Amino acid sequence: MTDFNAFFDPRSVAVIGASRKKDSIGEVIMHNFIQHFRGKSYPVNPNAKQILGKKCYRTITDVPGSVDMAVIAVPAKFVPQVMRECAQKRVPAAVIITSGFSEVGNHELEEEITRIARTTGPRVIGVNCLGVFDSKTDVDTLFLPRSKMDRPKRGNVAFISQSGAVGSIVLDWIASRGIGMSKFVSYGNATDLNDYDFIEFLGRDANTKVICSYMEGTKDGRKLMAAAKKAKKPIIVLKAGRTNEGTSAVSSHTGSLAGADAVYDAAFHQSNIIRANDIEEMFDFARVFSKQPPARGKKVMIITNGGGFGVLATDAIIQNGLELAKWDSKSRKALKKVLPWYAPVHNPMDLVGDANAARYKVALDCAMDDPNVDAVLCITLFQTTSLEPDVVKHVINFSKRRKKPIVGCAAGGKYTHDNMKRLEDAGVPMYEAPHEAAKVLGVLAKYGGRL
Amino acid sequence: MTDFNAFFDPRSVAVIGASRKKDSIGEVIMHNFIQHFRGKSYPVNPNAKQILGKKCYRTITDVPGSVDMAVIAVPAKFVPQVMRECAQKRVPAAVIITSGFSEVGNHELEEEITRIARTTGPRVIGVNCLGVFDSKTDVDTLFLPRSKMDRPKRGNVAFISQSGAVGSIVLDWIASRGIGMSKFVSYGNATDLNDYDFIEFLGRDANTKVICSYMEGTKDGRKLMAAAKKAKKPIIVLKAGRTNEGTSAVSSHTGSLAGADAVYDAAFHQSNIIRANDIEEMFDFARVFSKQPPARGKKVMIITNGGGFGVLATDAIIQNGLELAKWDSKSRKALKKVLPWYAPVHNPMDLVGDANAARYKVALDCAMDDPNVDAVLCITLFQTTSLEPDVVKHVINFSKRRKKPIVGCAAGGKYTHDNMKRLEDAGVPMYEAPHEAAKVLGVLAKYGGRL
Repeated sequence: MTDFNAFFDPRSVAVIGASRKKDSIGEVIMHNFIQHFRGKSYPVNPNAKQILGKKCYRTITDVPGSVDMAVIAVPAKFVPQVMRECAQKRVPAAVIITSGFSEVGNHELEEEITRIARTTGPRVIGVNCLGVFDSKTDVDTLFLPRSKMDRPKRGNVAFISQSGAVGSIVLDWIASRGIGMSKFVSYGNATDLNDYDFIEFLGRDANTKVICSYMEGTKDGRKLMAAAKKAKKPIIVLKAGRTNEGTSAVSSHTGSLAGADAVYDAAFHQSNIIRANDIEEMFDFARVFSKQPPARGKKVMIITNGGGFGVLATDAIIQNGLELAKWDSKSRKALKKVLPWYAPVHNPMDLVGDANAARYKVALDCAMDDPNVDAVLCITLFQTTSLEPDVVKHVINFSKRRKKPIVGCAAGGKYTHDNMKRLEDAGVPMYEAPHEAAKVLGVLAKYGGRL
Repeated sequence: MTDFNAFFDPRSVAVIGASRKKDSIGEVIMHNFIQHFRGKSYPVNPNAKQILGKKCYRTITDVPGSVDMAVIAVPAKFVPQVMRECAQKRVPAAVIITSGFSEVGNHELEEEITRIARTTGPRVIGVNCLGVFDSKTDVDTLFLPRSKMDRPKRGNVAFISQSGAVGSIVLDWIASRGIGMSKFVSYGNATDLNDYDFIEFLGRDANTKVICSYMEGTKDGRKLMAAAKKAKKPIIVLKAGRTNEGTSAVSSHTGSLAGADAVYDAAFHQSNIIRANDIEEMFDFARVFSKQPPARGKKVMIITNGGGFGVLATDAIIQNGLELAKWDSKSRKALKKVLPWYAPVHNPMDLVGDANAARYKVALDCAMDDPNVDAVLCITLFQTTSLEPDVVKHVINFSKRRKKPIVGCAAGGKYTHDNMKRLEDAGVPMYEAPHEAAKVLGVLAKYGGRL
């Protein structure tokens, strides 16, 4: 079995091609390890004595003690020799950042790397990639400086990406949205290790609850399906190349065979992979799976203090293959007691514009106990004068019981964002549009139904 | 013709039902006018001598001089009497905030208001509404305090909303996104003036370039269609009640007849109204119409420094009914000169990961002059070390010529957001996902095709 710990939790790392040139690939990576990594890190470069205040070694074989991972960022033609030196040093894991292989027609050189990786080792992530990031161990081989690209906080969502650009942009973007991440892999040309290897490993990773993947094509669909089935975790895939034009753009980008989209669709369905249509949707889905239990059925109760939002949510619930739950008689009785005479007990349950937190508490308690309700879509328009910030606590309490899933919907400016952040941080996934909230409930029910 | 200037640019305003009670409806509205309005404003309330430091009048007839607009926030049963006093004072315009009319079964009282409005006047916006906001004159009858709800900056997008809650949430939300707004109307029960009246007026309004509307149903489809055709401006409608369940939720919310959705679809199509599916989409469309010229055709050139984003954009372009433009021979020649050997001249035009601003300039110049290109989708992944912030200038220069539309796509954290804001503020609508950028180009081409 591949020693993935050498990639994500190494005791010592050598950066081969470390550099003193500000913002160069070899400088940014070395800087990452010096600044953030708690293990040992060694710069390797035959043309320097010292790099960023550290003694520099001519080759990896000169580095004292054992090395768990090599990060390789030397020109393509030198990579085989460097790999052989890593083998001599018994390094188990290498991330090869270098590009200039099969993606520019240099197939032979890449095949040589595959051969070395699979015979003597080290096993390889790359070539032509960003490598790995682990929020817990602070392994960070990304050559994009933190001044231009933020890193995400700790969390339970893993992300693997064939494309380095998509990977880095997504990392930066989810960092700015406050989504937590466990591990990230950009695997580029998949010269040795491939999508299914990472999915298999992440399926076993205790810090990962949801796996997201951006791919343009896979080299082995059967292995991918087998790994996905084995993982027993939600796997969300964004696969580019849905149209004929997109497919041909893929082949000129990574040289992957994107293949007929319908084949992928069928394979994803069979192996319980959830398909996302864009980056935002992928992480909308990831957030709900990372925070809420799957729904046991399709019956959703909409609770709102704005009628219009209730209507938009109703349309969205139906359009996403869900159903409107019906209050049972016990719930009706309890709700009638707290609602004004002109507010009927319905679904959407419109607590009307002057609703306070207490009305929400009653509606949420009813939804928790009512056997007709499988999930809750809770709209809280914080702008109204009557709604106290206490409502946040009631929603969090519902979520904490983990009996039925709840997703929140609110939109607005600073005051609303502050309240949304309190909910999100406490485990209630928040969405700005009713249709986004309904969409995630849809996949939650679909996934729950398959279990 | 209705004197809409009395609503949006009055010289003097009376707030009937002004109050001293902090954060009450009558206090927030009075406060808005005192703090922000440059014309005269008078509190009217028989039970107070002074409100917020201003002399308070017993009735509107006691107010000295003429009054252009009355904002009415007294209990429902007193509204007819107050309306008669407004008529006596020859007030041309009234915003009636008060609820408790047909929406709670009180039809007769509401019909009385309609009768007064249409015989003696004043003409009425409301009842059961938030009223009006004008970013230029600072008329602001919204009873939600600014501590809970921001107001948008000046701009050329108007928004009318049947639902007060949707209206206020949207205002707060677009303020936080930095979208500029000309005028806002929340018209509630449409007791007198209705959607078509506002669309007709906004069609003539020099400060409004795009009209957005949230509706649950209209009282007169033919008048709405006539007003829309006459407006000769992009009109974007978000109509709730697309499903049967949504339609029945509408009837219990506003009592509107949502009607068969297909009928609305056909009517919108005939009158050149663009239909949005959710709030975010409505303002995604509004931003592009407010900033860019319509496209003369469907041929889009994708320019990118990230291959994966180029593939996602390709799929999205095709899925939105557009086509990939093909570079002509002159463009090919110019591009080959600046591109590295391994980067083919294609669409998507992948300037590859080490692209600098100069490469973008050449690609943008080619797209501007190339007769095969109708519009540009420009992806700028700012995280790469080689891309200088100067690229922003080149994109802005393209946009400023207003010859062909350009929309931008970028995603990330703070560094990227800062650059996106520079572009957005200079007139380049920016989107985080390639599929959003493609979607707005789709409506731009569709609208351009109908012209």
